[in-house]
Amino acid sequence: MSKNLAQKLIESHLHSGSLEPGSPIELNIDQTLTQDATGTMVMLEFEALGLPRVKTEISAQYVDHNLLQTDFKNADDHLFLRSACRKYGVWFSRPGNGVSHPVHMSCFGIPGKTLLGSDSHTCAAGSMGMLAIGAGGLQVALAMAGRPFALTMPKILGVRLEGELPPWVSAKDIILEMLRRQSVKGCVNKVVEYHGPGLANLTAMDRHVIANMGQEMGATASVFPADEVVRAFLRQQQREEDFVALAADDGADYDETDTIDLASLEPLIACPSSPDKVVPVRDVAGKTIYQSYIGSSANPGLRDFAIPARIVEGRHVDDAVSFDINPTSRQLLEEISRSGDLARLLEAGARLHQTGCGGCIGMGQAPSSGGISLRTVPRNFPGRSGTADDQVYLCSPETATASALTGKITDPRDLDMDYPSFTEPDQLPDMRPLLLAPQEIPVEVELVKGPNIKPLPEFDPLPDVLSGPLLLKAGDNVSTDEILPAGAEILPLRSNIPAISRYTFSRVDENFYQRAMDLKGDCFVVGGENYGQGSSREHAAIAPRYLGVRCVIAKSMARIHRRNLINFGILPLLFEQPGDYDKLDQDADLEIDDPIAQLEPGKPVELKNVTSGETVQLKHDLSAEEIETLQYGGLINEARKKHLD
Amino acid sequence: MSKNLAQKLIESHLHSGSLEPGSPIELNIDQTLTQDATGTMVMLEFEALGLPRVKTEISAQYVDHNLLQTDFKNADDHLFLRSACRKYGVWFSRPGNGVSHPVHMSCFGIPGKTLLGSDSHTCAAGSMGMLAIGAGGLQVALAMAGRPFALTMPKILGVRLEGELPPWVSAKDIILEMLRRQSVKGCVNKVVEYHGPGLANLTAMDRHVIANMGQEMGATASVFPADEVVRAFLRQQQREEDFVALAADDGADYDETDTIDLASLEPLIACPSSPDKVVPVRDVAGKTIYQSYIGSSANPGLRDFAIPARIVEGRHVDDAVSFDINPTSRQLLEEISRSGDLARLLEAGARLHQTGCGGCIGMGQAPSSGGISLRTVPRNFPGRSGTADDQVYLCSPETATASALTGKITDPRDLDMDYPSFTEPDQLPDMRPLLLAPQEIPVEVELVKGPNIKPLPEFDPLPDVLSGPLLLKAGDNVSTDEILPAGAEILPLRSNIPAISRYTFSRVDENFYQRAMDLKGDCFVVGGENYGQGSSREHAAIAPRYLGVRCVIAKSMARIHRRNLINFGILPLLFEQPGDYDKLDQDADLEIDDPIAQLEPGKPVELKNVTSGETVQLKHDLSAEEIETLQYGGLINEARKKHLD
Repeated sequence: MSKNLAQKLIESHLHSGSLEPGSPIELNIDQTLTQDATGTMVMLEFEALGLPRVKTEISAQYVDHNLLQTDFKNADDHLFLRSACRKYGVWFSRPGNGVSHPVHMSCFGIPGKTLLGSDSHTCAAGSMGMLAIGAGGLQVALAMAGRPFALTMPKILGVRLEGELPPWVSAKDIILEMLRRQSVKGCVNKVVEYHGPGLANLTAMDRHVIANMGQEMGATASVFPADEVVRAFLRQQQREEDFVALAADDGADYDETDTIDLASLEPLIACPSSPDKVVPVRDVAGKTIYQSYIGSSANPGLRDFAIPARIVEGRHVDDAVSFDINPTSRQLLEEISRSGDLARLLEAGARLHQTGCGGCIGMGQAPSSGGISLRTVPRNFPGRSGTADDQVYLCSPETATASALTGKITDPRDLDMDYPSFTEPDQLPDMRPLLLAPQEIPVEVELVKGPNIKPLPEFDPLPDVLSGPLLLKAGDNVSTDEILPAGAEILPLRSNIPAISRYTFSRVDENFYQRAMDLKGDCFVVGGENYGQGSSREHAAIAPRYLGVRCVIAKSMARIHRRNLINFGILPLLFEQPGDYDKLDQDADLEIDDPIAQLEPGKPVELKNVTSGETVQLKHDLSAEEIETLQYGGLINEARKKHLD
Repeated sequence: MSKNLAQKLIESHLHSGSLEPGSPIELNIDQTLTQDATGTMVMLEFEALGLPRVKTEISAQYVDHNLLQTDFKNADDHLFLRSACRKYGVWFSRPGNGVSHPVHMSCFGIPGKTLLGSDSHTCAAGSMGMLAIGAGGLQVALAMAGRPFALTMPKILGVRLEGELPPWVSAKDIILEMLRRQSVKGCVNKVVEYHGPGLANLTAMDRHVIANMGQEMGATASVFPADEVVRAFLRQQQREEDFVALAADDGADYDETDTIDLASLEPLIACPSSPDKVVPVRDVAGKTIYQSYIGSSANPGLRDFAIPARIVEGRHVDDAVSFDINPTSRQLLEEISRSGDLARLLEAGARLHQTGCGGCIGMGQAPSSGGISLRTVPRNFPGRSGTADDQVYLCSPETATASALTGKITDPRDLDMDYPSFTEPDQLPDMRPLLLAPQEIPVEVELVKGPNIKPLPEFDPLPDVLSGPLLLKAGDNVSTDEILPAGAEILPLRSNIPAISRYTFSRVDENFYQRAMDLKGDCFVVGGENYGQGSSREHAAIAPRYLGVRCVIAKSMARIHRRNLINFGILPLLFEQPGDYDKLDQDADLEIDDPIAQLEPGKPVELKNVTSGETVQLKHDLSAEEIETLQYGGLINEARKKHLD
């Protein structure tokens, strides 16, 4: 039977289960990726597992998030991660090397391999025929320990790309068109596989743009074939020997299908404050902007910097605009320095920032009060920029640059100039010599733990009767940025759960922490649709659990966050009838009798609203393995117990 | 009578007074410089003065300090400054253009002109034959309003430079040798004038290195002649027409003299945590470092980046070292990008940061807990880096780079390689087109004030009887970094006195703010020698005044801070007998009867220690004009009253 590429990648790594969509499967993991904001916790978890060395083919740790060192904490974390890499056999990418996703793709991406990463945009590596999935840190730690990765067999959505992009329209506009069609929850439990003749003119880094933001649609993964374009990319990276040709079988089917005619696309823009509020740029043109921002894992390619440089050549950006350039890798910065594109940007008035994630994760570059910011980044969740009343729009480098020149939101086709050309260089400097490679022969290494690096808290299993107040009732599409924000103030606390828990839900309800501390007991949280979308940060589960949250009830949940809740012993339940959401008021006293025993297949879970006297029917979508994890009170407890047995 | 250059510069701008050292003089000011961390307050003050437009030849406002935008505050300040520049006829240098001192020198420096700047390192422009003086913001606002600048006629210290620097020894080692000789207080109320044959091989930017750190010796200004070297610099900046030859008269005398034989110098380093703890690098060689830091106003020249690039070419820096490169100007970054030096640094593993003051002012790049940081910056006061237990050493770019390669403090002569060569380019890009020039014809501009930009507090004159507790007793050499710290957390509050006052003395006594709030009344502060050294920030006077500090008593005081105290109505007094410092315990109740009336020339001021019953004799060094300012309760009150009359 002919198979699509996603099915082939899954089948070749299947540890257990079948290709039946919706069934539980386990995948063997070849590679892992961690970044510093999630990685310190991963390394503490790996330490707790007690293994001497990782069992993957490649594990790589990047320092790209917490680069603003305003006190000792981030620097201490970097040193801790370096020591953990040396101890456990992990590649270490130092600060300044760049954003994990493009650097991993350049250094380690191999078609046909599986990659599990503690960053939600890990799916970007699907651009080169990998099966790349974002997950909570603890699951990545277990993959580093050689354990297979459990998930629900996704449906495969085949998206056929036809035709060729017009001038001034680029890869970002393709994924914005996808978001316009799919919304931020349209691809939950799906893999999006791109195919068709339109691929021929999309470079591997163009595909990265599209694969990366699969996460914004809730997709489990994005998959592209490994074709001659990928071979050219590997040749450019001096790794052609790693190329393997991979594609769907002729006549392969998909569970769902869609088609995009590239020639019909125009410049698009996602309005504040959700990546799926997509409209044509011309619909919002003319608004005065504070900022134009180039960079991030969502536009990491050379052309994403070279095209802007050639647009602004010989001109000055508007004197009121902050034109912020965020190189995505050391390789890219070297190349634009050599090619003259960096000088072109600087001469036009650009601000060049440190190589890394930068303002995308709220590490600097926050816009002015209520100021409009055009960004090539993947997300515009409210306040993620660091400014509470931000107005962040997501767009292509072309649109961001045109708007920097005029000072207003501008369709780049209205610049009245020829679309600049750019040709990828045949070869780029190999970045691997500037990563610290695992030692062949392990040496005795002591973990370097600064004073802010605290042990993981211990968590009990669920009680026989789970009762407590509904401490927070939230709306639809609550992201992990709202459950546990990032940004320059909070990210440095990622290795210290007691300290970071103070910020739990602070963007939604600034008194949440205090109420939880006053309660000092078990409690519930309720959400609407797509609860926990966005970042893979497991702190959005650990910190609530630390504050007493034992059960989250929602209309629907995002994949990674749902699993993080389970990993830390929080029971994720769903409304049987979405309308019952209205029956639960904040502060109501809730109760679930014998919660684990109620988790039987096909049976409802009964929630008593003690305050109103009503009973609400809930359901669950937990696998037997996930229920077992909850019985232990989380995955660390389970791993420890099973290891002891 | 033959005069030295400092006397000639002073005489040509004398508004009142004579050249008798120690006598009060007033100088006409041609140019002003403000940066963003002090400039928002300057612009609020200028607004309070009610003038339509500045009266200087050139006033320029730079945004170089508060570049880490972690929320709306810094971005709002940038927009406020831009609007104030447009309203008042001030040049505006946008974020990304670079550090005020080298940019001002490149764009506006003219031999023979006076420059007053609200940044203590304004003295750097003495490198090109200017009389450049750092001052509190309010005095700069008054200079912008056309008022002369009052100071004590300094003694002139003539330093003769002889011979030529050996390989691996550079300008930074000359100023470190000066600091070794003079200490951090040796040049209070002195101008340091460099002359002699050793100047011939020091470029204008080399001289900037030396002039800049005159502030670290407490000097009022640093002065170099305007010779052919300065002409070459102006030609490089495409401004040769601004050159004026200036030098001391033949046979000119100095109040004090010193000589340095450049050939005898070796690489020097200032140990934690004072710029005058200078020893040969070899005395501390071998210590493991966390960080090596290139940049800042203390080493802003092209050669300060090009020489490191050529040292590391073809090598990798130690994999445990953070090698932080901080370009000082847009022009410099463009040039090292074009020359290949930037690529050389990146290939070696450097982290490139945003152009500006960066980690020098605690805006990122804080070292790890207790980690050693080698920096080419001007200051290593405790905690200024952002890490409380920091170990910051000050050194040349050569020493910092050699240490980055080895991972340990290293004398660069021990690298076993030839000293790289560097030749200044004949011409560099003109930076002025990227500054926003004052409008020829003023237009109606509204000041853009974000929600964090608060009005200046109103302050009363001194009471008839000044009484209150000694709320803080501090030691010697307390810097303004300890009175009111900088750094990424606190600097964004520079436009908001109530908010920033929470951090007053927080590095010295974390309960000071709470005790002041509990007191809600007048109080005293006591310090030792050289109280208030370092930065010119007037917030170190305004915030204590806001909290009730009405009188500071010390053994001696730094020039700029002493004047800032007066400007905001705080009475600065000195111990008649330094030993009486020991008679005042913290929390003692103190009292001064009719303080203004006691300020008579040559008469002591009596301080009653109500708690012990003793009386302590104090003295003052206030001019008649300063006493008048204190009578009004500060300079703003005075300016308003006089304007109203």
